[in-house]
Amino acid sequence: MSLSDGEGLALALEEARAGRAEGGIPIGAALIADGKILAVGRNRRVQLGSSIRHGETDCLENAGRLPATVYRQATIVTTLSPCDMCTGAILLYGIPRVVIGENRTFLGGEDLLRARGVEVVVLDDPSCTAMMTDFIADEPALWNEDIGE
Amino acid sequence: MSLSDGEGLALALEEARAGRAEGGIPIGAALIADGKILAVGRNRRVQLGSSIRHGETDCLENAGRLPATVYRQATIVTTLSPCDMCTGAILLYGIPRVVIGENRTFLGGEDLLRARGVEVVVLDDPSCTAMMTDFIADEPALWNEDIGE
Repeated sequence: MSLSDGEGLALALEEARAGRAEGGIPIGAALIADGKILAVGRNRRVQLGSSIRHGETDCLENAGRLPATVYRQATIVTTLSPCDMCTGAILLYGIPRVVIGENRTFLGGEDLLRARGVEVVVLDDPSCTAMMTDFIADEPALWNEDIGE
Repeated sequence: MSLSDGEGLALALEEARAGRAEGGIPIGAALIADGKILAVGRNRRVQLGSSIRHGETDCLENAGRLPATVYRQATIVTTLSPCDMCTGAILLYGIPRVVIGENRTFLGGEDLLRARGVEVVVLDDPSCTAMMTDFIADEPALWNEDIGE
């Protein structure tokens, strides 16, 4: 039985919420191939003192070293439009499909992904938008740090 | 006293060679600001079983959480032209200057960096090229894995 995009997003959202509960930045991701979850991840800037563990990159790190053939049939689901770094990680591994919870609070590299042939699906999920809107209002300095501003 | 690009590259090359001695992929990086080294790093795919610790991202991770103002006056030096992920990390943090040891064995996101206003300096260093040429000949499968192929 294959996971739907909505089920993938529910897992990513659960990661994001777990991150916020840890005092972190609420962005989560899930890597799916062949209808199965390969890994989930969440932004761990605060938790690990990390500048590179965004939702998507943490997810890719948790998935471990995978053959190119796996990435090439995968979907990565993320609660928020991917930043330049995460966009680049998706391109590096040739992941052909990205499902995005929302891009209202932050618009990342969607145009570059599309230009390089990646399918980009934006679900415009109100729970994702509300979560980020609340977070940005509560922790503007932390949010700006995470996007290099 | 400020570090020259060549001195930065020597540090990155030392990291790359240490990585190869560990059985890893010989790519190293150094982050420099205000003429001082903030961090060095090296590809640690093999050493950490990592899909995201490239030379540049490992260096950024080792540098820790830095204020945007520090990145904005920094130079990142890398032994090899940066892949899509590392290109994206440089863009995320607004690092304005990238010094590259060589781009003969792999050409990464240099055009995108330039298009986004980053100064890209290619030193075309024969030691960097020889190191990567030898590595790719010795470990083609590992190299392809690292670039998602």
